[in-house]
Amino acid sequence: MFEGFPHIISAKQFSREWLENKFFPLTDEMQAVFDSGGCEVLKGKRMVSLFYQPSTRTRMSFEMAMDYLGGKVVFSSENARESSSAEKGETLRDTLMVVNRYKPDVLVIRYDRSLDASLVASASRAPVLNAGDREPGEHPTQALLEARTILKRRGAIDGLKIAIVGDLKNSRTVRSLCYILGMFKNIQIYFVSPTDIKIKDDVKEYLHKNNVAFEESTDLRTVAPKVDAVYQTRTQKECGGSIDRKDHNLGYFLVDKELAESMKPDAIIMHPLPREDEITLDVDSDSRSVYLTDQIDNGVFARMTLLKMILS
Amino acid sequence: MFEGFPHIISAKQFSREWLENKFFPLTDEMQAVFDSGGCEVLKGKRMVSLFYQPSTRTRMSFEMAMDYLGGKVVFSSENARESSSAEKGETLRDTLMVVNRYKPDVLVIRYDRSLDASLVASASRAPVLNAGDREPGEHPTQALLEARTILKRRGAIDGLKIAIVGDLKNSRTVRSLCYILGMFKNIQIYFVSPTDIKIKDDVKEYLHKNNVAFEESTDLRTVAPKVDAVYQTRTQKECGGSIDRKDHNLGYFLVDKELAESMKPDAIIMHPLPREDEITLDVDSDSRSVYLTDQIDNGVFARMTLLKMILS
Amino acid sequence: MFEGFPHIISAKQFSREWLENKFFPLTDEMQAVFDSGGCEVLKGKRMVSLFYQPSTRTRMSFEMAMDYLGGKVVFSSENARESSSAEKGETLRDTLMVVNRYKPDVLVIRYDRSLDASLVASASRAPVLNAGDREPGEHPTQALLEARTILKRRGAIDGLKIAIVGDLKNSRTVRSLCYILGMFKNIQIYFVSPTDIKIKDDVKEYLHKNNVAFEESTDLRTVAPKVDAVYQTRTQKECGGSIDRKDHNLGYFLVDKELAESMKPDAIIMHPLPREDEITLDVDSDSRSVYLTDQIDNGVFARMTLLKMILS
Repeated sequence: MFEGFPHIISAKQFSREWLENKFFPLTDEMQAVFDSGGCEVLKGKRMVSLFYQPSTRTRMSFEMAMDYLGGKVVFSSENARESSSAEKGETLRDTLMVVNRYKPDVLVIRYDRSLDASLVASASRAPVLNAGDREPGEHPTQALLEARTILKRRGAIDGLKIAIVGDLKNSRTVRSLCYILGMFKNIQIYFVSPTDIKIKDDVKEYLHKNNVAFEESTDLRTVAPKVDAVYQTRTQKECGGSIDRKDHNLGYFLVDKELAESMKPDAIIMHPLPREDEITLDVDSDSRSVYLTDQIDNGVFARMTLLKMILS
Repeated sequence: MFEGFPHIISAKQFSREWLENKFFPLTDEMQAVFDSGGCEVLKGKRMVSLFYQPSTRTRMSFEMAMDYLGGKVVFSSENARESSSAEKGETLRDTLMVVNRYKPDVLVIRYDRSLDASLVASASRAPVLNAGDREPGEHPTQALLEARTILKRRGAIDGLKIAIVGDLKNSRTVRSLCYILGMFKNIQIYFVSPTDIKIKDDVKEYLHKNNVAFEESTDLRTVAPKVDAVYQTRTQKECGGSIDRKDHNLGYFLVDKELAESMKPDAIIMHPLPREDEITLDVDSDSRSVYLTDQIDNGVFARMTLLKMILS
Repeated sequence: MFEGFPHIISAKQFSREWLENKFFPLTDEMQAVFDSGGCEVLKGKRMVSLFYQPSTRTRMSFEMAMDYLGGKVVFSSENARESSSAEKGETLRDTLMVVNRYKPDVLVIRYDRSLDASLVASASRAPVLNAGDREPGEHPTQALLEARTILKRRGAIDGLKIAIVGDLKNSRTVRSLCYILGMFKNIQIYFVSPTDIKIKDDVKEYLHKNNVAFEESTDLRTVAPKVDAVYQTRTQKECGGSIDRKDHNLGYFLVDKELAESMKPDAIIMHPLPREDEITLDVDSDSRSVYLTDQIDNGVFARMTLLKMILS
């Protein structure tokens, strides 16, 4: 699919052309397949999913996508770090080489360290789909579902004004989303975070090179009325960060009903989930909220699309 | 199935009429299906099971029931609390809403807090089957299997004299069983427990309202000769309780060969499992013991029955 | 299969005659089935796998074997100790009796204590396959894959000179391998380990009775040039052992490029995995290394063979 590299490790591997000519059109087809209850196009194909970090939601989305295409999850581990040879010191490379001997058709891996592309390429014949890694961390399939959510809700990605809020330093979904946004035109990003967990320099450099305008802020209230989308994220507690959403010193990072009312009528409210307290429950029923609906749906459609591209 | 509420959260939802006219007859059919090796009536149906508390036995019983009917467990988590977004703070409501987007046909959930019926109703279109919750805690499918075990072994539930023994304060299976017993006539319950973990007042009130006679005791030896069934339970160590089964101050709560010999020849010995030391191993081969046989079998049959009712 | 005892608990159950007349020939067939993408011979058969100790690799090998034969893994627990009734005190016997009521066709169990053969025989009608137990610990299916690896690479097992290296006191794979080697002729074993974790006396007695010559050493460098196979093992950290591979006091236990160069051109380098640092990465590409290739392949073939023998 990607010039002889069958794995999906980083959102940087995508391109505007691929998204518009291949990914988005096929995703429409996959939505129709899902709505019809599934198909059998991947019958006989084998998926292995290895999660070294907990994620019921992402694992379910991948495994559901496989099921809706008629493929089979022949092996699944929800806690590969604690409950596998990993705890005895096995390296990712050994694991990839071993799993490949079983001739799976695709591997889905969530990893608590970095999924190094050259290591993956050297150790795995089967396509590896990055279901979230760390340091710095990417989540490329999440970025795909977000791109489709924006496209379907807004009609286009070009020209988007988006506030990206939260622990921007440690968020892998933010990083992958930024890589995708850099492929479009006239994007304006407002990064809203406490100063100690703001977006990293290498992401800024990427955006700069790709002509994406961005500003940094600590007050979501001044930004919200200007944007087409608020992309809220949770505090990444496992990474040590922690946010008081309305702290006088840190800034203002809460999406509640009052903040939502300050937003444009056709703006959307996004969140990669899971949510803590950063979006209040009374915002869920707002028709502009897409985190419990469109984003989940597009997650399955996007993963079905990738599986179909890779396996059939 | 239950007046527009498709979920099974509490044993209170059942009724004598439903048990006798619908549940028990269909369970006989399901037993025949199981004995014949299974069928395909639920082919194409999708179950998701999420266990926030450990239970190999209950998860296996539900998943086996689905398999024997030809349905598919498309996703299973045995440790959703530790290995899911739950640990990052996601609420049950968010989880239910997300899972429902994948269009499962039924959800099986074991939860370490309370499965609130109105929350479930508001968040899940797919029927939710409570596989055990907490505070106060119910286990409605367990109560169904116990009702069928009593019926098949004793010929009737009406008129039953039963000793219910152990940590009655914290047992979810005892609570659900009491709710079912309250639907029958001339029931006499002997609650046998240390005084600090005796049956809670709200259960007593329910029994009183439903004309179930009950007594409380601390000595199983004086009760055992009188009853048609001894329902022994384990000490719920995770809830802080702990029982010395033959403590001079606490009372007597052990089922051993000597106690079994004092019981009627047609009485039965029940236990929801897992067992610790509260029934000695030499009682297992007693023909009146049903905890490793009839109760396990009826567990699969009862769950097959519910799945068939709900999904076909 | 084994004189009315359908379970595979110990490598001692095998015999040279069974290996040569039944196991090895059928394994050749199973390799062809695997290479062709699988078959449906076990369609409708049900496997349950219960792992009380972590092992992604071994669990995957068994479940893949079942899948390649068209059978179904109807229930799988990757952490049965922490996430099952086991933590509430349920005994293995109760678990076996309960699982058997569900009528599985085969049980795969990894257990962190001893899988007692007579207990298994009394509690399980379904064949139980020992996927690794403890105290003293065996791993009989691992020994089978190793026997086939030696046979295919060397042409014969008779006459083998093999160095077995590492924490020999606690390794279950070493124990099972020794039992198999004892069935062949003119075997010479060199046990290489620190003196505090050397091979146990009962294994030595077994080898003595079966006319296997063996020596003990603390320096792999003096042994390596003489042998047809080096069987390296990891340090069993969970058992308290720990090895400095090049400690002046303990001895020399490292397989690196230099050591490999001292070995015969047709010798092989084996390891049951997972690996820590006891074989350096530059040895992986040596054509004599079989731990990431032949041994993994033969693991699936061996388990397919057993499943086919037992279930069809």
